[in-house]
Amino acid sequence: MSKLFMFEKPLGMRDTFPNLYQAKSSLKTKMEETIKACGYQFIETPTLEYFETVGDASAILDRQLFKLLDQQGHTLVLRPDMTAPIARVAASKLLRNKKPLRLAYCANVFRAQQREGGRPAEFEQFGVECIGDETISADGEVISLMISALKNAGLRNFTISIGHIGFVNELFKEILGTEERANILSRFLYEKNYVGFRDHVNSLSLSSIDKQRLFSFLKLRGGKEILRGAYPLMEGEAGQEAIEQLEELADLLKDYGVDQYVKFDLSLVSHMSYYSGILFETYAENVGFPIGNGGRYNKLMEKFGKESGATGFALQLDHTLEALGFSESAVLDHCVLFSRERRSEAIQYAQELRHQGKSVVLQDWKGISDVDEFSKEFIEVSYFIGKNGKGGEE
Amino acid sequence: MSKLFMFEKPLGMRDTFPNLYQAKSSLKTKMEETIKACGYQFIETPTLEYFETVGDASAILDRQLFKLLDQQGHTLVLRPDMTAPIARVAASKLLRNKKPLRLAYCANVFRAQQREGGRPAEFEQFGVECIGDETISADGEVISLMISALKNAGLRNFTISIGHIGFVNELFKEILGTEERANILSRFLYEKNYVGFRDHVNSLSLSSIDKQRLFSFLKLRGGKEILRGAYPLMEGEAGQEAIEQLEELADLLKDYGVDQYVKFDLSLVSHMSYYSGILFETYAENVGFPIGNGGRYNKLMEKFGKESGATGFALQLDHTLEALGFSESAVLDHCVLFSRERRSEAIQYAQELRHQGKSVVLQDWKGISDVDEFSKEFIEVSYFIGKNGKGGEE
Repeated sequence: MSKLFMFEKPLGMRDTFPNLYQAKSSLKTKMEETIKACGYQFIETPTLEYFETVGDASAILDRQLFKLLDQQGHTLVLRPDMTAPIARVAASKLLRNKKPLRLAYCANVFRAQQREGGRPAEFEQFGVECIGDETISADGEVISLMISALKNAGLRNFTISIGHIGFVNELFKEILGTEERANILSRFLYEKNYVGFRDHVNSLSLSSIDKQRLFSFLKLRGGKEILRGAYPLMEGEAGQEAIEQLEELADLLKDYGVDQYVKFDLSLVSHMSYYSGILFETYAENVGFPIGNGGRYNKLMEKFGKESGATGFALQLDHTLEALGFSESAVLDHCVLFSRERRSEAIQYAQELRHQGKSVVLQDWKGISDVDEFSKEFIEVSYFIGKNGKGGEE
Repeated sequence: MSKLFMFEKPLGMRDTFPNLYQAKSSLKTKMEETIKACGYQFIETPTLEYFETVGDASAILDRQLFKLLDQQGHTLVLRPDMTAPIARVAASKLLRNKKPLRLAYCANVFRAQQREGGRPAEFEQFGVECIGDETISADGEVISLMISALKNAGLRNFTISIGHIGFVNELFKEILGTEERANILSRFLYEKNYVGFRDHVNSLSLSSIDKQRLFSFLKLRGGKEILRGAYPLMEGEAGQEAIEQLEELADLLKDYGVDQYVKFDLSLVSHMSYYSGILFETYAENVGFPIGNGGRYNKLMEKFGKESGATGFALQLDHTLEALGFSESAVLDHCVLFSRERRSEAIQYAQELRHQGKSVVLQDWKGISDVDEFSKEFIEVSYFIGKNGKGGEE
């Protein structure tokens, strides 16, 4: 174990400097406006949760969890997502009379990383959860809300890719029979390794009709019209119902006037095992990762003892900011430099400027070693130095 | 080890429900305005830091630290305060050309608790750090900034109690000789156990003059005028200089027009071992704990290899909110209930209301089981249900 430098940070941990902080803050404010206008209420949950309850329910890989022991011998985790903690809150405190709950959050989540230079181990998520409503209207509301929030934040070129985990599960069950065999194929889809998917299908002992079904399934990507083509692939009722739900969703998103942001991809799956219905991922131009994702997770609510519909989305703030094209730029407005003799005057002058809405640094000139160097950072500098002189601006 | 209920949270961990979240959010926004107007810039640091670097520098008791091991075998801590991380950032990245840095933060910090029903183990701090300025002007700026932030947040009755750790250390050194003996007396002061302090002084083998000095010292609490009375107690130069600094600070705070919020207490000490000069605590009516504190911590910067002046304040958001008298109250504006047939109309109506600045829940009536019960939560409800009818408002 090497000795640490005094300035080192743990693997995957980052500082956020003023410019980036300000950009993130503006982005959050704009998205909050949209979310609040739709009657969603923000809540906060603890950074630490019990592994046995929320940690285990969160569906994040065990090796990605930051774990510690508390003094009672229980394992704690740094929350790896916000959906499971909010499901806990909803199930335990808020979900009365079966009224739908509309909750929102903006919080850091934690995923341990294995190597230097990889993904961040702590990152901020912004999201909503609509809990207690099983209608497709709730799915549509959440998707259109994400679109509105992104539009209000100034994002123009983005696409929501929508699928249905019930459709994939049903198709695989019909064709492959066992969950084990289905999981292998799902993994190819999750990794978007379509070549691997085809090779694997070819290696299976299936009828050529079933192989063709699996190949056709891969092509079900595009506008609403591709949904029609999905019906012939499914034999059972559950699969048919999944397609009907997607058709209803397509109509709904048209009513919301956001259908141009949407495409369907019936091969979409997730590593989150709690999804149970419609699910989606959000892509922006020039960003290599999805900037957001979400879906219906009725199964998660069951873990917390409630039979309840639930759906939500989460946006990764860093990726969203990248999509918006965050650029460094920050000059401070104004500095008032003073010496002891004219301090009182300087304070009054600074306060006047601040009342005019300016950001003003007030600086004792004895506290700095190089006045010229210091002054460069500001758009304007006023001097209140020495015994003489009345004004002060320069 | 008992089995956990599915809804349990770790010791000292809390959820923040919508009303409290909203109140905290408004408080932060108001204080941020003040802080930004004075040219302070917000930054963020990681939740996890190395124990060896920041954790050790933070001056929080070891048993209050949440610790975990990373995969390289290093001990990590959940940050117990924000001053040490910001000192790390300032020392490593930002402190160039000896320019003063004005940084601000709003972040959760973590202190492990030993028993149920005690203090929170995670709480939010709001604060600033002025780093790289050794003048008393910096101390005055930070104190007046805290006062302005609290005033802008609407707080009226509060007091900043100001002391000087250099004065206490010097007095104890002159009279008691050893650090060990000084620490025992400091502990009484930290616990504000003045009876214990007197009893202990009486039990020491000191001259009656020295005992009298220690008793007189305890009485040095009040307005600026008490500072005069401090000079006769001190023999050495360091002690005299501490009092001169406080006198300069008193003048400065008068120039800022905030002297009515201030009193002096020369017996003020802190459990934070890194304080090196002027320090302070903030009290509000009806709140049992200090709502904030701060001071000069040049010693902490030395740990990070920089000889640099530094001072700052931290406010506990929960206590500040308590001082402001947070009251529960939240009714949602408006709900638009719809059925499939009139969905498109309902969406348009909701969007119009939102453009007018209203918060509007849009709800598919099939998603709720009891319309009357659901409607109670809103000031207004509009119905777009069934095939007939044109309007919708009720």
